Amino acid sequence: MELSLVKIAEIVEGEISGNTSKKIRGAASFEEANGDEITFAGNAKFLKRIDETSAGAVIVPRDFQTATKNLVKVDNPQLAFIKVLNLLHPASKPAPGINSSAYVGKKFMCGKDVSIAPFVVIGDNVTLGNRAFVHPNVVIGDNVSMGDDVQIYPNVTILERCIIGNRVTIHAGTVIGSDGFGFSPEGGKYYKIPHTGIVQIDDDVEIGAGNTIDRATFGKTRICRGVKTDNLVQIAHNVTVGEDTILIAQVGISGSVTIGKNAILAGQAGIAGHLNIGDNAIVGPKAGVAKSVPEGQVVSGAVAMPHKVWLKVQNVLPKLPEFIKKISKIEKKLNKIEETLE
Amino acid sequence: MELSLVKIAEIVEGEISGNTSKKIRGAASFEEANGDEITFAGNAKFLKRIDETSAGAVIVPRDFQTATKNLVKVDNPQLAFIKVLNLLHPASKPAPGINSSAYVGKKFMCGKDVSIAPFVVIGDNVTLGNRAFVHPNVVIGDNVSMGDDVQIYPNVTILERCIIGNRVTIHAGTVIGSDGFGFSPEGGKYYKIPHTGIVQIDDDVEIGAGNTIDRATFGKTRICRGVKTDNLVQIAHNVTVGEDTILIAQVGISGSVTIGKNAILAGQAGIAGHLNIGDNAIVGPKAGVAKSVPEGQVVSGAVAMPHKVWLKVQNVLPKLPEFIKKISKIEKKLNKIEETLE
Amino acid sequence: MELSLVKIAEIVEGEISGNTSKKIRGAASFEEANGDEITFAGNAKFLKRIDETSAGAVIVPRDFQTATKNLVKVDNPQLAFIKVLNLLHPASKPAPGINSSAYVGKKFMCGKDVSIAPFVVIGDNVTLGNRAFVHPNVVIGDNVSMGDDVQIYPNVTILERCIIGNRVTIHAGTVIGSDGFGFSPEGGKYYKIPHTGIVQIDDDVEIGAGNTIDRATFGKTRICRGVKTDNLVQIAHNVTVGEDTILIAQVGISGSVTIGKNAILAGQAGIAGHLNIGDNAIVGPKAGVAKSVPEGQVVSGAVAMPHKVWLKVQNVLPKLPEFIKKISKIEKKLNKIEETLE
Repeated sequence: MELSLVKIAEIVEGEISGNTSKKIRGAASFEEANGDEITFAGNAKFLKRIDETSAGAVIVPRDFQTATKNLVKVDNPQLAFIKVLNLLHPASKPAPGINSSAYVGKKFMCGKDVSIAPFVVIGDNVTLGNRAFVHPNVVIGDNVSMGDDVQIYPNVTILERCIIGNRVTIHAGTVIGSDGFGFSPEGGKYYKIPHTGIVQIDDDVEIGAGNTIDRATFGKTRICRGVKTDNLVQIAHNVTVGEDTILIAQVGISGSVTIGKNAILAGQAGIAGHLNIGDNAIVGPKAGVAKSVPEGQVVSGAVAMPHKVWLKVQNVLPKLPEFIKKISKIEKKLNKIEETLE
Repeated sequence: MELSLVKIAEIVEGEISGNTSKKIRGAASFEEANGDEITFAGNAKFLKRIDETSAGAVIVPRDFQTATKNLVKVDNPQLAFIKVLNLLHPASKPAPGINSSAYVGKKFMCGKDVSIAPFVVIGDNVTLGNRAFVHPNVVIGDNVSMGDDVQIYPNVTILERCIIGNRVTIHAGTVIGSDGFGFSPEGGKYYKIPHTGIVQIDDDVEIGAGNTIDRATFGKTRICRGVKTDNLVQIAHNVTVGEDTILIAQVGISGSVTIGKNAILAGQAGIAGHLNIGDNAIVGPKAGVAKSVPEGQVVSGAVAMPHKVWLKVQNVLPKLPEFIKKISKIEKKLNKIEETLE
Repeated sequence: MELSLVKIAEIVEGEISGNTSKKIRGAASFEEANGDEITFAGNAKFLKRIDETSAGAVIVPRDFQTATKNLVKVDNPQLAFIKVLNLLHPASKPAPGINSSAYVGKKFMCGKDVSIAPFVVIGDNVTLGNRAFVHPNVVIGDNVSMGDDVQIYPNVTILERCIIGNRVTIHAGTVIGSDGFGFSPEGGKYYKIPHTGIVQIDDDVEIGAGNTIDRATFGKTRICRGVKTDNLVQIAHNVTVGEDTILIAQVGISGSVTIGKNAILAGQAGIAGHLNIGDNAIVGPKAGVAKSVPEGQVVSGAVAMPHKVWLKVQNVLPKLPEFIKKISKIEKKLNKIEETLE
């Protein structure tokens, strides 16, 4: 595919500085782009090195100036670059249709232009919206409902009665709707608590590969609009993850936790059961959160504490053995002084 | 389904206080139950709020009294509630039979009333007990043996020669019998150690979603009767997990670890290789266990230490920078005093 | 299978001490081997207990002597034992052929003696080398290329355009080529950054079960020759893992990290984005690496620090509350002295 810089500027609502007739045949990173390709420089780090890229054009902030490069000036260079990328690399999708080897249950309510790949299993009473793309070997349980423009990657399992919104993407190997981990102890043994609830995933959510999201005991485990999860994330029963919240790889959320909107949980963090994580809160990597985190607070460490305190603690920790020695020295000196004074 | 309170009391061996002719049509949580539904209040926290539930009946401890609610009094309210739940929400299971699209190898020894879903692959010489329910897209290797009443969720892989007991449930996406991680270093490269052992899972075990349980180098990796694992748990080669032990989400157990009975390993904990974790031991969330844990001991932290010590350490940790400052102040004062005394 | 000790000595280039006509019918661990079986004793720990094994023969280092056992003396006993194991327990593989239930796309370039199991899905333009063994329910996307002697275990997903070398093994449930976790924030929402790169896995790599390896934004995520990963490892977009590096279970590598050759990352360690981990570096279990690690350095802890420092810190940590008390005592004493001196 070939796009003129004029066309690109039009699409991203930008202004051109340089050769308006320039043709663009691809997009690449700042370091790897060649003279036929476009890239972007979103911040000072890249803008000051702009002469180092071989790109044929660079998307930059509106106020940036240089005579040495063809520029497309926009409000948000990264977002503009994404638009160009989507145009140059449109997502591939098979022709609509249900592959003859797929297994489809009773009362399938199927939208328009749906693609269902080989060896997909669809239970009874399943609803699938328009333009859904279900990759091979996906299993969808009875009474599952999914919206328009969903994409379900290979080997995903979505168990009975779960509800999936519009424009939801679920990456390979993920499990939605497994039973919550709930057992009742009696006489040294454990008795399973049936999990009669569901998982509800709202619009515009993207779930990474190898996630496990458990159904609620009653009611629902809920992943709200716009949430993005990375790979190998564990979300237990009855959790709510608020809108536009980010869960980075290998995060674990215990049962009945409520997370607010626009929060960020960094990699390998863990949240203990029944806590609240407020809107816009940030939980650091590997943090172990043992009490609720107020709105907007940044916490780090295991056990988690306010980030600023944690930074100071981390700073002194490696010097601890040396301070312990100092204390011994101080004690000796003191004893000596006391002797002198007696 | 509708059940009279009398019938429910009979099933759970309880006594009714209130309207014995009350009809129950469902079960729900304390907060969400309506007048047709039953719930339970197992401890003081809920019992003192009993008037806040709208439930039509509440299962309570034998010694609890109130005139405002229909009560069913029992020894263990949660366990009684589970019995009622199982009655009101019987697990759905397809009609017995092997789906015509399943692939079944040679010499299949198949029990009665077995359900095998589409695109299941069963190797040669596999034994499956009565009433087994194998969900879609499960792969069972050659010479695997499974007992009665097993339930294997979608996209599970059980590799050759593994042995699964009775009443075992394995949740979606889990892998049983992958090779142990063993390589022999020589000249900067690694040579694979063949893993000729198996995984043996005993009766009444429930394995969560997305688990990986490696086969032994020789002999067996063994998950003993009654063990419950949460999601994304890693169990390495030659591990033994003792009866009725609980492994919470994202726990990792290194090779040749032996865990006793009725132990609890909390979320994201990790155990180093070749250690022993005693009966009834508790390993805290995110703990990193670097030496064996005696019977009944509670450990926390990374590196793990006795829980009581860890609590004190956690308490002083955030105050550490302030204490370091104090030490500097003390040093200055001491120097001054020493000067005075010289 | 039966092998004479003479034959075994020939294969492992060893010398026999004892009964050269001894027949060996199996191999087992030091503790479990019986009189028909061979085992090995690679170090002093086992060599000094050599009379405790019931094995019919023991593979030992060249300089070891004993009259009580049949010995095979070699340079590297463990490696020699692996050779014998591979001979006695040859890996089983189905007869070559593409199962009639597999789904194969257009323009499949298929090597010789390939085994493709039931319900495998192969996209368009896929290349598969000689003697490849693809287990059931594997999904291979369009334009994937794989070398000779690959083994892909059940329920693995390999997405479009990824490149897999020769003698690569990928264990069950793993996902290769999922989208990197990249989103651009704008007005409180996140916009997906398309990932147009690939994953390239070089020769002699073994990937554990339940791994997730994301494709690059541009270019490639690269797993170099000889790398071995354990289970549930997460490798983000644009990561490079150098030759013969070891990633133990539940390790998480953030985006754009570069790891050198012959490094070892222990279980549950995490590496923050864009860092370099040098050749021969060792990252301890549960370490949280927040800055680059130079060649050959050993780091531990979260946040990671040089291992020797960390050992001292771990040593004093449990004694911290006691030292805090000491500081209070010291302060009191000092105050008293100051009063005395005023």
